[in-house]
Amino acid sequence: MASDGEVMNKQVILKHFVDGAPKESDMLPLEGFGVAKVVDSGHPKFKEGDLVWGIVGWEEYSVIKNPESLFKIHHTDVPLSYYTGILGITAWAGFYKVAAPKKGENVYVSAASGAVGQLVGQFAKLMGCYVVGSAGKEMELYIYILFPRYFPEGIDLYFETVGGKMLDAVLLNMRLHGRIVVCGMISQYYLSEPEGIHNLMNLPYKRIPMEGLAVIDYFPQYSEFLDVVLALIREEKLVYLEDIAEAIESAPAALVGLFSGRSLGKQVVVVARE
Amino acid sequence: MASDGEVMNKQVILKHFVDGAPKESDMLPLEGFGVAKVVDSGHPKFKEGDLVWGIVGWEEYSVIKNPESLFKIHHTDVPLSYYTGILGITAWAGFYKVAAPKKGENVYVSAASGAVGQLVGQFAKLMGCYVVGSAGKEMELYIYILFPRYFPEGIDLYFETVGGKMLDAVLLNMRLHGRIVVCGMISQYYLSEPEGIHNLMNLPYKRIPMEGLAVIDYFPQYSEFLDVVLALIREEKLVYLEDIAEAIESAPAALVGLFSGRSLGKQVVVVARE
Repeated sequence: MASDGEVMNKQVILKHFVDGAPKESDMLPLEGFGVAKVVDSGHPKFKEGDLVWGIVGWEEYSVIKNPESLFKIHHTDVPLSYYTGILGITAWAGFYKVAAPKKGENVYVSAASGAVGQLVGQFAKLMGCYVVGSAGKEMELYIYILFPRYFPEGIDLYFETVGGKMLDAVLLNMRLHGRIVVCGMISQYYLSEPEGIHNLMNLPYKRIPMEGLAVIDYFPQYSEFLDVVLALIREEKLVYLEDIAEAIESAPAALVGLFSGRSLGKQVVVVARE
Repeated sequence: MASDGEVMNKQVILKHFVDGAPKESDMLPLEGFGVAKVVDSGHPKFKEGDLVWGIVGWEEYSVIKNPESLFKIHHTDVPLSYYTGILGITAWAGFYKVAAPKKGENVYVSAASGAVGQLVGQFAKLMGCYVVGSAGKEMELYIYILFPRYFPEGIDLYFETVGGKMLDAVLLNMRLHGRIVVCGMISQYYLSEPEGIHNLMNLPYKRIPMEGLAVIDYFPQYSEFLDVVLALIREEKLVYLEDIAEAIESAPAALVGLFSGRSLGKQVVVVARE
């Protein structure tokens, strides 16, 4: 079952007792998607040895007070780390549920080598769309060349993960009745103030809905998603790239790497192996 | 039939003959919604004396080569100028078709004394929403006080007609699952470059769709709209305010007045009276 690239964060899962719960400290760990094993549990839904995924702290052991936010892992014929990325629902929900593109539409994916972008690009190809992806910080220098060259008729669907100058350039190059799905704006997170977006009048000019994607809204559809994507993985119709950092000590540098455009594929950190 | 405030632009409507059409000059008049009377026509759908409304030039007489863009006026028991404003479909389409609010929701209307804002505010009240409107350029100074005071739980629906700093402040004060309908951004049109919008990450954070309203997309629903709104006007359930400038020579100053926040209600220009 174990394989390279697994994120294995051994957690203590306790039933939440209002009185007995430890007082929350002001020093909380960073949080992110992770995979963990139950080492102890007072909650009837979870027992020792269960594998789970969900939003967890960057730490080796955790006490979970709201286990409703964790999902049990039933399929272990894929690397466990997949549950932090390709088996997370973001790309699927954004592409199929929010954007809902049609065959032949022109799709542009920014941060196309990242965790979400690599999947959206492949979903769009499977759908029969024309797809162009871009990656890397230096893309900002080329966006005003990129779009006239590769989208002479304009962009029908933009999957937004970058923000800033990229979004402003895309707005100018959207097609009438295009759609923008906002999944994230990674170019903006490390700025003290986000860059301004100047071309929003293209939304009414070109009748473009711009919709935010909040992945937790799609958790109830997780099993529908899992059936589709596990099948695609097993039939080798989806390729998935991970950038694996070893040991929890490497996590801060791995995080910074996301913003400098250094990582390629889904960035994962191995905390422990089974 | 004639009344104060009518916009009466006598036009010549000709059937479009590809060979016979006059060559378009580089000097085209400004365009806007207007009401006109047919003085001559070679088109079977229009005859001398017909009253029409639609997008027309700022001029006393026009040759219309695409009369499909004009709509015949059948109801003349209201001032003809109403066809440039309250009987235009913008506010209705944006409120009922795009925003689709529910009773009890919190609605914020900027430029609330303007052509569209005054109607959206009344539609929202008729719907049983909680409504707050603001007007005037100096509002920009108060927006960070306005929202915590009048929307302690946040805004469910923002009808965007202002843009710039107003939009940025609204984004911070939107409620989870709110909606933004972008009708226009009047604070931005006279700037050499639009101001930047910095808080768009609130779209995914709060699951907010932000949708552009392009009024011409709703022209096919015009008769449905007209039945509803004419009834509301006749039952005096809708109040409508116009700011009337006399003579075509006053049109440039009236236009500039829109951007300085000087006009109150729908700005119309009387070109001629019947």
